[in-house]
Amino acid sequence: MSLKAISSKDAASLDKDLMEIGGWSLDQLMELAGLSVSQAVYRVHPPSSGKDVLVICGPGNNGGDGLVAARHLAHYGYKPSVYYPKQGKNELYQRLKTQLENLSVPFISDLPVAIKSADFLVDAIFGFSFGGPLREPFPTIISQIETASIPVLSVDAPSSWDIESGPPKEGPGSKFMPEALISLTAPKPCVKYYKGRHFLGGRFLTKSIADKYKLDLPEYPGIEQIVEVGVNAEGRL
Amino acid sequence: MSLKAISSKDAASLDKDLMEIGGWSLDQLMELAGLSVSQAVYRVHPPSSGKDVLVICGPGNNGGDGLVAARHLAHYGYKPSVYYPKQGKNELYQRLKTQLENLSVPFISDLPVAIKSADFLVDAIFGFSFGGPLREPFPTIISQIETASIPVLSVDAPSSWDIESGPPKEGPGSKFMPEALISLTAPKPCVKYYKGRHFLGGRFLTKSIADKYKLDLPEYPGIEQIVEVGVNAEGRL
Repeated sequence: MSLKAISSKDAASLDKDLMEIGGWSLDQLMELAGLSVSQAVYRVHPPSSGKDVLVICGPGNNGGDGLVAARHLAHYGYKPSVYYPKQGKNELYQRLKTQLENLSVPFISDLPVAIKSADFLVDAIFGFSFGGPLREPFPTIISQIETASIPVLSVDAPSSWDIESGPPKEGPGSKFMPEALISLTAPKPCVKYYKGRHFLGGRFLTKSIADKYKLDLPEYPGIEQIVEVGVNAEGRL
Repeated sequence: MSLKAISSKDAASLDKDLMEIGGWSLDQLMELAGLSVSQAVYRVHPPSSGKDVLVICGPGNNGGDGLVAARHLAHYGYKPSVYYPKQGKNELYQRLKTQLENLSVPFISDLPVAIKSADFLVDAIFGFSFGGPLREPFPTIISQIETASIPVLSVDAPSSWDIESGPPKEGPGSKFMPEALISLTAPKPCVKYYKGRHFLGGRFLTKSIADKYKLDLPEYPGIEQIVEVGVNAEGRL
């Protein structure tokens, strides 16, 4: 199954349409995005395979999706911790953080130590709006993730990758290949450089939005918020 | 499995705590409440058993939960229609309605005709904040639901029932016994008069909130947003 990709510019325009024409709030969209991430995590790493998940959140909406996912994971019985080095300004991020604090989810400060004790990572650092270059502390963070031998599930795009042209030619991220990727709404063009398990989330698009942006609407099974759209086992690191 | 009930007053206070202390927005809470309703519907009436579901929405938050549920049901492959005779003032309700209109979900005006062509109903008319008495058009609506031989799933409480003392002694609602009930956050006291399948939704409570209101936190399976808490087959109408 191969799905059409959406450019960074169109993905931004689609989000705007959802909110300005579609009646959606960011709270709603982020709740469903984060829920879909948590379901992909559960599929790839059920709690029986390890419960210590470290969610690394960036300053924007990708990080917000990660915060929501961490909350759902806590309710599923995981023991999430969150690394959130640079909180964005939107008040929603503070509320999502409060929700996690009320569940006693720890916000950690020592990333190398946290990576060592985690069973796997969720990379919710950057999504479709990443324009590069990486600025500190993110080159260091990406290097730490990249050199650790720990499975990673990336949200929307492998962080550090150019949304169009994929992994950087050299430096942090040039060898970054997550075990799993969940594309939100539609795959981004860089997915053609990706090898691993690939999920799609965003079970809320209307036919008119899909038609406007020439997207495929995949068939989601049952009540699930995700659908697996491709497995490329030999590409796994 | 028997769960402690929460009074109408405490349920209102709990919602206030979630929003004022817990960092939750109404958008988020309603999204998860409506999602849990949609999952209960799927469990009781999978699409293979009939897709024509009529969602009857009241003017408040119970109606809002119904609107969200209708949206998810449309994505699951049902053919929902909505009866929404008295829209409340919160701008969120208008946005939820817009989301449904963009999915081509019809808002119907002739309830008796719509009931005849439906496979089952979702009663999202009144929840824990219902204080009675029923005012028109709702006594007529309840009578129409009550006298139709069609399965009903009620959201939070069977509409027309007193939240403490259960079904009215006479008149509309006195013979109303839904096939299924989904209690949100915790059962309401009137659940002791209820006989049928009973689900709980609201997989977002923290331990401190549960402790404050002396609630049981049930174990939800897997990634599900609902848990079935009791079946009383002989009580079904």
